[in-house]
Amino acid sequence: MKSRKVRVGLVQSATTDDKQANVARAVAGVKDAAARGAHVVCLQELFAGPYFCQLEDPGLFDLAESLDGPTVAAVADAARSAGVVVLASVFERRAAGVYHNTLVVLGPDGGTLGVYRKMHIPDDPLYYEKFYFTPGDLGFLAVETPVAKVGTLVCWDQWYPEAARLTAMAGAELLFYPTAIGWHPAEKAEYGAQQLAAWQTIQRSHAIANGVFVVAVNRVGHEGPKDGGLQFWGRSFVADPSGTVLAEAGEGEEVLVVDCDLARMEDVRRNWPFFRDRRIDAYGGLTRRYLEG
Amino acid sequence: MKSRKVRVGLVQSATTDDKQANVARAVAGVKDAAARGAHVVCLQELFAGPYFCQLEDPGLFDLAESLDGPTVAAVADAARSAGVVVLASVFERRAAGVYHNTLVVLGPDGGTLGVYRKMHIPDDPLYYEKFYFTPGDLGFLAVETPVAKVGTLVCWDQWYPEAARLTAMAGAELLFYPTAIGWHPAEKAEYGAQQLAAWQTIQRSHAIANGVFVVAVNRVGHEGPKDGGLQFWGRSFVADPSGTVLAEAGEGEEVLVVDCDLARMEDVRRNWPFFRDRRIDAYGGLTRRYLEG
Repeated sequence: MKSRKVRVGLVQSATTDDKQANVARAVAGVKDAAARGAHVVCLQELFAGPYFCQLEDPGLFDLAESLDGPTVAAVADAARSAGVVVLASVFERRAAGVYHNTLVVLGPDGGTLGVYRKMHIPDDPLYYEKFYFTPGDLGFLAVETPVAKVGTLVCWDQWYPEAARLTAMAGAELLFYPTAIGWHPAEKAEYGAQQLAAWQTIQRSHAIANGVFVVAVNRVGHEGPKDGGLQFWGRSFVADPSGTVLAEAGEGEEVLVVDCDLARMEDVRRNWPFFRDRRIDAYGGLTRRYLEG
Repeated sequence: MKSRKVRVGLVQSATTDDKQANVARAVAGVKDAAARGAHVVCLQELFAGPYFCQLEDPGLFDLAESLDGPTVAAVADAARSAGVVVLASVFERRAAGVYHNTLVVLGPDGGTLGVYRKMHIPDDPLYYEKFYFTPGDLGFLAVETPVAKVGTLVCWDQWYPEAARLTAMAGAELLFYPTAIGWHPAEKAEYGAQQLAAWQTIQRSHAIANGVFVVAVNRVGHEGPKDGGLQFWGRSFVADPSGTVLAEAGEGEEVLVVDCDLARMEDVRRNWPFFRDRRIDAYGGLTRRYLEG
C-alpha cells in the first residue's frame, strides 16, 4: 500500500494569566511546527489561559468567547499564514448560560472545517468542569481536512472507549485529545506513576481497538496555590494503530513533530480485523446507564 | 471500606494430543491453586487439547462434548473436592452443526453457576475459529458465585471494549479472559513485542475504563508444524481496577495465585467516576456496523 504521510504537531505549553501572551505562544507553536513540516497542529485543551476549573466562580465565565471571537481568529490567522490545519480548544460562549468546552478545526485557509463540543464532562476535586461546561450536543465527529480525516475529542473523553469507537466509526484516521491533566501534588508520590500509566494505557488502547492514530496534547506547569493546585504532567504523545508510542514529550514546554503514515491503518486493520467481528446485535445495552440493579 | 479479598488462581499450561492427560493437568492445577488458598481458578481457553483451529477439518468436531460430557464433569469434580469456583473453557457440542467455544462457571459444590458462549469469533491465519464456533447467543454475563461476581469472556472478546463494558455493567467484579494467543514464529522477531504489548494494553484498559479486575489466562508451548504453527506466549496476568499489573506469569507452565481486594473497586470508581458521565444519549451508533460510507 502506498504510504500517505501526515506530519502532526503537538504544542505542549505552560500558561500564565496573560491571555494575549498565551495565545501568542500557541500561535508561535503553530508556526514552529509548520516550519518543521507539520500538516496538522493540535494545541492543548483551553490553551488561552490557566486551567480555570480549579474553582467555581461565576465571574470566570467572562473568559469565554464566541467562536468568532479573538482567540479563534488569532489561531485561524496562524493556520492561514502557516498553511496548516489547526485544532484549537476554546471556552465557548454560545448563549447566556450556555457555555461549552469546544474544539475548532481550522483549515489551511483559516476557515472553520468542523466544531466539536466536549461530550463527557468531568467533575472531580479541582476539575469542576460540570459548573462551566454544558455537555456537547454535536455528537462524535470525524472532520475532513485536506490531509486527513481528524477525530475531535477532548480530555475526559479519553477515558471512554465509546467515544473513541464512534469517532473512528465516523471515519477518523487520527483521534486528537487536547488535554489538561495533572497531579494533585499531595498525591503524586503515591499515585502519580499509576495515574500517568493509566492515562497512557487507555489512550493507547483506543489506537489498538480502532486501528487509528492517537494524538494526546497536554499542558505543563504548576497552576494554583503553592501548597495545592495541579501539576500538569505534559507527556504529550502519538500512538500508531498498533498502540506503539511513536514519540512522547517530557514534562516541560515542547513542540513535538511526528510523522504518521496513514497507510499503516490499512495494514493493521487487515491483520487485526476487529471491526469485522463486532457483535452489533448484542450491544444495545451500551445505551443503558447500568445493567445491574 | 472493609477489604474483601478474593484469591484468584490462573492455570497456564502446555497441552499434548492426550486429552485425558490435559484434563488431569488442569485438575492438578485447580488443586494446586486451591491448596495455595485460591477461591476462584481459571483454566486457559480450550485446555483439554492443543489449539485445533490451526486448520479446518470437519473431523475435529469430534473433539467437542456436550456440557454434561466428561471434561466438564472432571473439572466439576475438581471444583467440588477443592471447594473452589472454576472457570472451564470447552468446545461445546450443542447440536449437530451447532458448536460453541463455551466458558462454564462451576461452583464449589461442583454445580454449574453460569454458561457463557464466546461472542466474538476470530478468523485469521491459523486461528480459523469461524469454521468451528457458532457465535454465542447468551449475551454478556456476570455470574454470581459465593466469592465474587465473575465476568465471563473468552480470548478474541478481549479486543472489544464493548464486551468488557457490558460485562462490567452487568455487575462483574473481575473480567476473566481464558485465552489461546501466540506468535507466528516467522513474525516474532519483527512483531512479537508489539503484539504482546497490545494484548496487555487493551486488557489493562478494560480494567481502567470499568474499574474492575482483569484476569487473563493464556496457554504456553509451540503447537503445529516445526517450521510454522503457533508459539503461545503465556504471560497470564491480573490487573487491578487502576490498570496496574498485580502479577504476571512467564512463558512456561505456571500456576499463578493472586490476591484481589474487591473493596479497591469502590475506591477507584469514586476517584475515577467514569460510569457517572457516560453519554448514553449519544451511544446509539455503537449498534451500527460503521458510520462512514
